[in-house]
Amino acid sequence: MADLKSTFLNVYSVLKKELLEDPAFEWSPDSRDWVDRMLDYNVPGGKLNRGLSVIDNYKYLKEGKELTEDEIFLTSALGWCIEWLQAYFLVLDDIMDSSHTRRGQPCWFRLPKVGLIAANDGILLRNHIPRILKNHFRDKAYYVDLLDLFNEVEFQTASGQMIDLITTLEGEKDLSKYTLSLHRRIVQYKTAYYSFYLPVACALLMAGENLDNHVDVKNILVEMGTYFQVQDDYLDCFGAPETIGKIGTDVEDFKCSWLVVKALEICNEEQKKLLHENYGKADPANVAKVKALYHELNLQGVFADYESKSYEKLIASIEAHPSKAVQAVLKSFLAKIYKRQK
Amino acid sequence: MADLKSTFLNVYSVLKKELLEDPAFEWSPDSRDWVDRMLDYNVPGGKLNRGLSVIDNYKYLKEGKELTEDEIFLTSALGWCIEWLQAYFLVLDDIMDSSHTRRGQPCWFRLPKVGLIAANDGILLRNHIPRILKNHFRDKAYYVDLLDLFNEVEFQTASGQMIDLITTLEGEKDLSKYTLSLHRRIVQYKTAYYSFYLPVACALLMAGENLDNHVDVKNILVEMGTYFQVQDDYLDCFGAPETIGKIGTDVEDFKCSWLVVKALEICNEEQKKLLHENYGKADPANVAKVKALYHELNLQGVFADYESKSYEKLIASIEAHPSKAVQAVLKSFLAKIYKRQK
Repeated sequence: MADLKSTFLNVYSVLKKELLEDPAFEWSPDSRDWVDRMLDYNVPGGKLNRGLSVIDNYKYLKEGKELTEDEIFLTSALGWCIEWLQAYFLVLDDIMDSSHTRRGQPCWFRLPKVGLIAANDGILLRNHIPRILKNHFRDKAYYVDLLDLFNEVEFQTASGQMIDLITTLEGEKDLSKYTLSLHRRIVQYKTAYYSFYLPVACALLMAGENLDNHVDVKNILVEMGTYFQVQDDYLDCFGAPETIGKIGTDVEDFKCSWLVVKALEICNEEQKKLLHENYGKADPANVAKVKALYHELNLQGVFADYESKSYEKLIASIEAHPSKAVQAVLKSFLAKIYKRQK
Repeated sequence: MADLKSTFLNVYSVLKKELLEDPAFEWSPDSRDWVDRMLDYNVPGGKLNRGLSVIDNYKYLKEGKELTEDEIFLTSALGWCIEWLQAYFLVLDDIMDSSHTRRGQPCWFRLPKVGLIAANDGILLRNHIPRILKNHFRDKAYYVDLLDLFNEVEFQTASGQMIDLITTLEGEKDLSKYTLSLHRRIVQYKTAYYSFYLPVACALLMAGENLDNHVDVKNILVEMGTYFQVQDDYLDCFGAPETIGKIGTDVEDFKCSWLVVKALEICNEEQKKLLHENYGKADPANVAKVKALYHELNLQGVFADYESKSYEKLIASIEAHPSKAVQAVLKSFLAKIYKRQK
């Protein structure tokens, strides 16, 4: 595993080197240095789960057969494209959310020398993806499908981001907009497609599959991505800060979290009034009232119930899939997240 | 001509309608309204020269033969993709430059309900391009070349924007960075590829041409785009405000303009000192000193000389091209901009 990660990081160095010598642009030392630092700051510093999983997924599809060096390189390159996509979203999201830190360091746009140049850097990150794809996949039969896939998933993610932004930022804070259906739509589009479906779809294309034949796989992964985000929302409030590595602030930030949506669904009129009065305020006294209500409504139990039902449903869908190899991919994904504490 | 423009605008309505019903996203009335307003505000309000020219270019390539309805629709759709690309750049550039107005109205991000959501709207505009291409060109032999073309040109534009931003914004104002070579690189990458090469390249692909065989056409158009931007820089200072429709502020804004670069090249040490002391300051007294120096150095004459030399060189390159149809495309482009006053 440590070995896989170091191979993966070597591919990053190769891809970066190619980008810094891209013949479609006339480089100067200044511009090369800028992109070099920008990439190192924003691309490889995450957990790399999405990117690394492409290699695993492809291995399962090849039924465990040893991958050739070429296959390892290509699956890694696709994995890095997903990491680049993630970096692009994060750089721009941080600007839009006025965030301060990301992955334990100041957000890129917070660096004094960077500022709003970061918006264009986000664009550059996005533009690197088709450069990488062209450099390594132009002669593959599935090249055009790869381009279509990345385009569609990016469109879906930006659309999910849009509904999140227009419900959270537009106009005054109004809890009555927050419903389970809105929550599901935001999560599905903003997170699930690129985090769950994309790493599997990349592996399927490399394995020669037609994605039109795998709508069921897509649906299962979107379901899994939704479950993952519900866990995230749950851990923000009920997780141990020392385990999840941060102190959750969803209540203060007026987030459309699964918890508040569920609370609104099951509470009585008096409790609803309490939520409306206290949700989205920075004062710890307001936050404490909301969290006390979550306990009163037994959201821990409601979540445990949701978790086990989701799991059963996902397992049933996976086992209904005709291919054992595809089942293995999906089960490995599910095993990584089921009952996670961080 | 008025007829062509109204046909073109009809295609906009068709494309917008398709995007607002894109089956890859689950629309709500709120999100559909948002995108609808965002598109109308940002996409069709410019001069539409780039977009409209795709239809003209294709006509020339067809040697004046009447276009079918299908051909008019498809060339218009490609023209609109370029307008969408332009809208995407402008929305994000305005955020990065803290601009106030654009096309006679407040910049999109300046609207109180929008703010930084505009960054994601820019991303959405960008994502609409592959949606339009997929809807109308997926079954064409040149589909993958279209995707590659838009990807490469976007990459070049973002790279040009990067060198502009890092020389203008990074660190303190330092005139000594401004050289003719830097100016040419910024202009070529930031403007020429997408404004001049892209509308012709789209028409060439639709006409069944392989772009690899048209590197000379690309070079001529990039040259023409550079000449166009030099005119722009010249008119900012020497144009009639009532004709160009704005009062130029390149001197105040410390822009890497062809004028300052040329002045630095031909001035003596004392004049250089004056430039360093007065360029990039908002005070009208400083601006007046810079403009007096431009007159003293006879930049009007230097420009007139540059203009006629560029024209001769461009005409010679065009006439060396083996295809009369391609010559017609290039000459029509050149005729539109030669000695323009606005």
